Amino acid sequence: MTKKEMIYEGKGKKMWSVAENSDLLIAEFKDDLTAFDATKKGNESGKGALNNKISTELFGLLEQNGIETALVETISDTEQVVKKCSIVPLEVIVRNIATGSLTKRLGITEGKELPFALVEFCYKDDALHDPIINDEHAIILGAGEQKELDYIKEQARKINAILKPFFASKGLKLVDFKIEFGRDKDGKIILADEISPDSCRFWDAKTGAKMDKDIFRQDIGGGSVKVAYEEVLKRILN
Amino acid sequence: MTKKEMIYEGKGKKMWSVAENSDLLIAEFKDDLTAFDATKKGNESGKGALNNKISTELFGLLEQNGIETALVETISDTEQVVKKCSIVPLEVIVRNIATGSLTKRLGITEGKELPFALVEFCYKDDALHDPIINDEHAIILGAGEQKELDYIKEQARKINAILKPFFASKGLKLVDFKIEFGRDKDGKIILADEISPDSCRFWDAKTGAKMDKDIFRQDIGGGSVKVAYEEVLKRILN
Repeated sequence: MTKKEMIYEGKGKKMWSVAENSDLLIAEFKDDLTAFDATKKGNESGKGALNNKISTELFGLLEQNGIETALVETISDTEQVVKKCSIVPLEVIVRNIATGSLTKRLGITEGKELPFALVEFCYKDDALHDPIINDEHAIILGAGEQKELDYIKEQARKINAILKPFFASKGLKLVDFKIEFGRDKDGKIILADEISPDSCRFWDAKTGAKMDKDIFRQDIGGGSVKVAYEEVLKRILN
Repeated sequence: MTKKEMIYEGKGKKMWSVAENSDLLIAEFKDDLTAFDATKKGNESGKGALNNKISTELFGLLEQNGIETALVETISDTEQVVKKCSIVPLEVIVRNIATGSLTKRLGITEGKELPFALVEFCYKDDALHDPIINDEHAIILGAGEQKELDYIKEQARKINAILKPFFASKGLKLVDFKIEFGRDKDGKIILADEISPDSCRFWDAKTGAKMDKDIFRQDIGGGSVKVAYEEVLKRILN
């Protein structure tokens, strides 16, 4: 597979067209870190490679459990071949434990175990700061029809039902995570993007230590994420 | 009916217990106007009486069309006897045309006719500034069960289906409105609070002129709402 042309650069990845196959793309994981609507920026050498490895493992686990994903093959430390998708413009957030915006916006006690896995949609639009929306907004904004939104929520809950016990067995609490879906060339909705400590919150089950991008967001222990991300990868592989 | 004790004072109304019947309350409509989370305040003599008359007419129209409401009887210019309810802590917003937060938050074009009546829930909490929520948040926040939320949305759409053509026949576009529901002593969910130009947006069908609290919010023509509210009442009664 040969990179042809960079077609998109996001906060965490560059997307390249592929010379040999127009149905595929190469995703290149970047070392950049951003937070708070990209008003806080950083960079840590090796972060992209760690996320590539972690996301590869998790997408593999999900595929084994019946979740269709865009991942085709991981071809280098920082690169994956993925199915070309039209991204559904929704950040799909699944929450098991209240923290972050759930605490700030809705006053729910920090650290509270939610009675069920809560699914939120935010409308992917940087200029609007990814506002939280309900299903009817999503339909009016053209993100999908109700049955597609229902399918996305069902997939999100299934993904959580696979990942939460997996991480529990590794001594990590899966607090919440953000996923994205795309429509493949046949219009089928599949899991796209990545699942990594950039897009999840993990708390160590014993110590409660944060093992995710909150280290960068909150400058915990100097704000370097690499040791924690390496530990997450190590536990996933163990 | 005799007022006994003021049990609650909101932005638009005072609520009194009733000496003769503990299942009833007296709602007293105030002349106060507030906007932008009550950071903007005003007062206009006669506004409360206008809202009382308008809301009485609209609740009557809704009752005639099968919507159960908390209104028992209007007993003076500014007072209604209502069934005592436990208010569901949701602001239920129904939108026919995009304006206000829909335009600012979601970038939908001002004045756009929506493809269907959009229903939004905001969590009633002044300290949190009534944040917008989805059904799952509402359940976790204890506002109701899914079937109750479905019933509230169904009632909200029915109310819109009654009011929108009614106002159209009076030369007014019903742009959007906010309603609240309560649980009566038997736990039945019924329409409560008020429907008035304080809680609706009305645009004159010919001129597009605003005939609601946006006059106060935006200081249109000096910010006095009385002439517009009187015109809304006149059209309702014609």
